Amino acid sequence: MSATARYGDPAAALGVVNDVLTLQLSHRSVRRFLPHAVTDDELAALVAAAQSAPTSSNLQPWSVVAVRDPRRKARLAALAGGQGFIEQAPLFLIWVADLGRAQRLADRAGAQVTAAEYLETTVIGFVDTALAAQNAVVAAASLGLGSVFVGAIRNHPEEVATELGLPPHTVATFGLAIGRPDPAEHAGIKPRLPQEAVLHRERYDAAADEHIAAYDERLAAYNARFGLAGNWSGRVLQRLSGPESMAGRHRLRQTLERLGLPSR
Amino acid sequence: MSATARYGDPAAALGVVNDVLTLQLSHRSVRRFLPHAVTDDELAALVAAAQSAPTSSNLQPWSVVAVRDPRRKARLAALAGGQGFIEQAPLFLIWVADLGRAQRLADRAGAQVTAAEYLETTVIGFVDTALAAQNAVVAAASLGLGSVFVGAIRNHPEEVATELGLPPHTVATFGLAIGRPDPAEHAGIKPRLPQEAVLHRERYDAAADEHIAAYDERLAAYNARFGLAGNWSGRVLQRLSGPESMAGRHRLRQTLERLGLPSR
Repeated sequence: MSATARYGDPAAALGVVNDVLTLQLSHRSVRRFLPHAVTDDELAALVAAAQSAPTSSNLQPWSVVAVRDPRRKARLAALAGGQGFIEQAPLFLIWVADLGRAQRLADRAGAQVTAAEYLETTVIGFVDTALAAQNAVVAAASLGLGSVFVGAIRNHPEEVATELGLPPHTVATFGLAIGRPDPAEHAGIKPRLPQEAVLHRERYDAAADEHIAAYDERLAAYNARFGLAGNWSGRVLQRLSGPESMAGRHRLRQTLERLGLPSR
Repeated sequence: MSATARYGDPAAALGVVNDVLTLQLSHRSVRRFLPHAVTDDELAALVAAAQSAPTSSNLQPWSVVAVRDPRRKARLAALAGGQGFIEQAPLFLIWVADLGRAQRLADRAGAQVTAAEYLETTVIGFVDTALAAQNAVVAAASLGLGSVFVGAIRNHPEEVATELGLPPHTVATFGLAIGRPDPAEHAGIKPRLPQEAVLHRERYDAAADEHIAAYDERLAAYNARFGLAGNWSGRVLQRLSGPESMAGRHRLRQTLERLGLPSR
């Protein structure tokens, strides 16, 4: 049941299933929220789940800023493409790749953390932040909370850093708007690529691309349900067409350098 | 109960709890596996969970290569710091940030995907791969499977690409060794930083660093249980001291360029 919606394919089925898998497979982005607050107990549970995710060498190179102040949410929403659901969500978490904590440790110890200057370490920051945040997404779902990631927080990383008082050697990686889903939202479970297109055995096989055609049809049908045109291939080509389709984020490399993450 | 182990703090407690949170909070890396195979049904469930994770603009910019061949696992283990558990694990998943699929779409359509040349898009590749992989980690745990990430797959990305036949515009981001945990493994739930050190309200507060001292004591006590010396601060400073502590990964930026991910 959950696999058929996940793949938009009546023939899709899984040979094993349990409550956790069912929860994961039924994930969708939630962009309309009821006004109910996310409690401090719920927030603590989300962060504990996030901290339980694996982290490279136990570096724990991330922080999270919990924003509930309506005015701050409005300012962040304006910086992140003006998406109204950010203001509507009772809780907006900004996930921060944080090499600043290690840098401050080094400063206090009179030591050097030169490794933090390399792209590899920036990547660890982004990856470990993502592992943590995804645990929070699943934890939220288990508590009946919906969520949606906001990559547009990277449209204006320096302004976001000022708004949140982020110290050097940190960068806001993405936001996560959280709240109780409004059942009136007209949204569904967006089908993904056929598993055969992304799962390879022993070696990568580019012939797996042959499964994209069927997916294009499924996604076009799904989009049409919501009054949207276009299939997957067309949208990918449009989204990646060039810097003009990146809302300013093509400058990320220079911005990271100014934020103290030279990523060399 | 699960919070006390997670934080190594008898006073740690959560106000909400459920089966999913308990599963997440009890996460530990597993590095000793029983010989039982991970079945194809289990693999399909892990990948379906991974595909259910959020992905920026539905780009789905990742692939995963499932390796079971003992000789290939041995060669990958040798490329990834010689870690024996890779050979022992019945299943080794290599998660691939994959802009190659979009590039091939563009080639077939006679289109350009110039956005794929920017660091922002490389970051999306790594982040979305991480979101997906973390869902697989939680799904694995729900099926009684243990796992451990292998960042050392980035020690030699070009050799890994050759071994796996990875096409241009892709990079192996990390490995994930999976199998049934050997109950004889001497391992525990590694305590994390106090939540007060990573969770900020409204604005980032560097004074949260004051909670590191208590954590250093907890982690030193935890390490001592396993015959290891050192606290958290000392290990972070050592791990990030400089390029010589990075196992070759300080060259990631140049390597990505050669793999067709110029990340400019």
